[in-house]
Amino acid sequence: MIVVKTIEEMRELREETAGSVGFVPTMGYLHEGHLSLVKKAREENPAVVVSIFVNPMQFGPREDFKSYPRDTRRDLAMLEPLTDIVFIPSDKEMYPKDYDSWVEVKGLTDVLEGAVRPGHFRGVTTVVAKLFNIVAPDKAYFGQKDAQQVAVIKKMVKDLNMNLEVVTCPTVREKDGLAMSSRNTYLNGEQRKAAAVLYRALMLAQELVFRGEKDAGAIRLEMKELIEKEPQANIEYISIADNETLKEIHHIKLPVLVSMAVKIGKTRLIDNIVLE
Amino acid sequence: MIVVKTIEEMRELREETAGSVGFVPTMGYLHEGHLSLVKKAREENPAVVVSIFVNPMQFGPREDFKSYPRDTRRDLAMLEPLTDIVFIPSDKEMYPKDYDSWVEVKGLTDVLEGAVRPGHFRGVTTVVAKLFNIVAPDKAYFGQKDAQQVAVIKKMVKDLNMNLEVVTCPTVREKDGLAMSSRNTYLNGEQRKAAAVLYRALMLAQELVFRGEKDAGAIRLEMKELIEKEPQANIEYISIADNETLKEIHHIKLPVLVSMAVKIGKTRLIDNIVLE
Repeated sequence: MIVVKTIEEMRELREETAGSVGFVPTMGYLHEGHLSLVKKAREENPAVVVSIFVNPMQFGPREDFKSYPRDTRRDLAMLEPLTDIVFIPSDKEMYPKDYDSWVEVKGLTDVLEGAVRPGHFRGVTTVVAKLFNIVAPDKAYFGQKDAQQVAVIKKMVKDLNMNLEVVTCPTVREKDGLAMSSRNTYLNGEQRKAAAVLYRALMLAQELVFRGEKDAGAIRLEMKELIEKEPQANIEYISIADNETLKEIHHIKLPVLVSMAVKIGKTRLIDNIVLE
Repeated sequence: MIVVKTIEEMRELREETAGSVGFVPTMGYLHEGHLSLVKKAREENPAVVVSIFVNPMQFGPREDFKSYPRDTRRDLAMLEPLTDIVFIPSDKEMYPKDYDSWVEVKGLTDVLEGAVRPGHFRGVTTVVAKLFNIVAPDKAYFGQKDAQQVAVIKKMVKDLNMNLEVVTCPTVREKDGLAMSSRNTYLNGEQRKAAAVLYRALMLAQELVFRGEKDAGAIRLEMKELIEKEPQANIEYISIADNETLKEIHHIKLPVLVSMAVKIGKTRLIDNIVLE
């Protein structure tokens, strides 16, 4: 495994690489969710590149950029058995003085996470476009946990004719259903237990739909009531939306994306499930 | 010379191409200015790709998208001796239904053409990013005639880490100094004569600077007076700016970009010169 820090070194290594390149962009502090992406990339490509970059441009001014967990040594140890190249650029390498170019997907980013985190997706699409240009992968791997992010990146790739395939991998969960996330580390013991309510609410939605409930509003309401029973939980949004346009629906017509953002204490968690 | 109309065909041809690819994106209705770019690409690369696409996204609602001159048969005849692949996509191929992704360079696009043509550069950077992703050139060729466009595209390539070199070629002029432009075809005989005043004003600025004039305001004023002697001419802007930031300067310090937009009758013409 080779670790590189500059764009130039990454480019040189890429040019020496034969065969397809699988790429997993991450913000580090890796967990089993990230590793499932790297394993998938390993299965499908002779060469695997992972980037670790906590992208300042996708954090809002009152968000957790500074406190976002970082542990590069641990990350590298986890990647070692699976990865050929790890790209760890500095902020200055990615955003030099006078940086001012942006990639933006409109429409899809007006709702859900985009509605409550202004500028977030512009930061995501910009850094992912940059990383794609630097790494030049054949396939890039993203987790379904960030459902809107995957939809936005797929749209960017299609609209801007980027020459690669975006592969979505299933959300990896803890035993109680909590979706793996670097931010779970913010939770104390009691909050960690409370956080399982997100998955329970998704399971409730699934059950209601499979039992034949067609009224999306009724399902949202039942999910809300379930989550509100958990005193630590504060709902930011609960959404039942078209899985492609991400627009809220009234009447259930599969496939639908059921998603939510819920604060457990001060920690903001998101989760989702696609019902098909 | 192979002519292709779909992104898929262009991609397939590109993948079969060995060695460096030189690319000249155009809006067609070719003239000697375009051909100078194609010739330069021919000199520097074993393979030359030219695109012809009148990009609707870079025209304002009251601009000349519909009336912009088009003559593909003539264009192809001119390209035949110099070009390997001509890419002529349809509007629908480039901007399918629900298209909504954008590449934008901020800062540099606030001034000059960007200030008077809102949305113009967003259209330019978006289509050029798309074409770069489709054609995957090693070098792309642009004319100095569109000075701000070149600066904006260079900034986009640098900021977004696009893996290619942007080559700028000198403005090609008619005998009386008028910069070659597809829009010159809009001019009637009298207007065509009047249009030479743009170049005379640029030459005046050059002469004043070389004689030692340091006051940019004084130079702008003399240029203004010269152009206003021409009854057909209406000045939109006259600029003396830093050649890198494109910001207006008060005191001449080389290199400077002297540029202007002037209407001759209803036809909007731009021209510029870099003093070094």
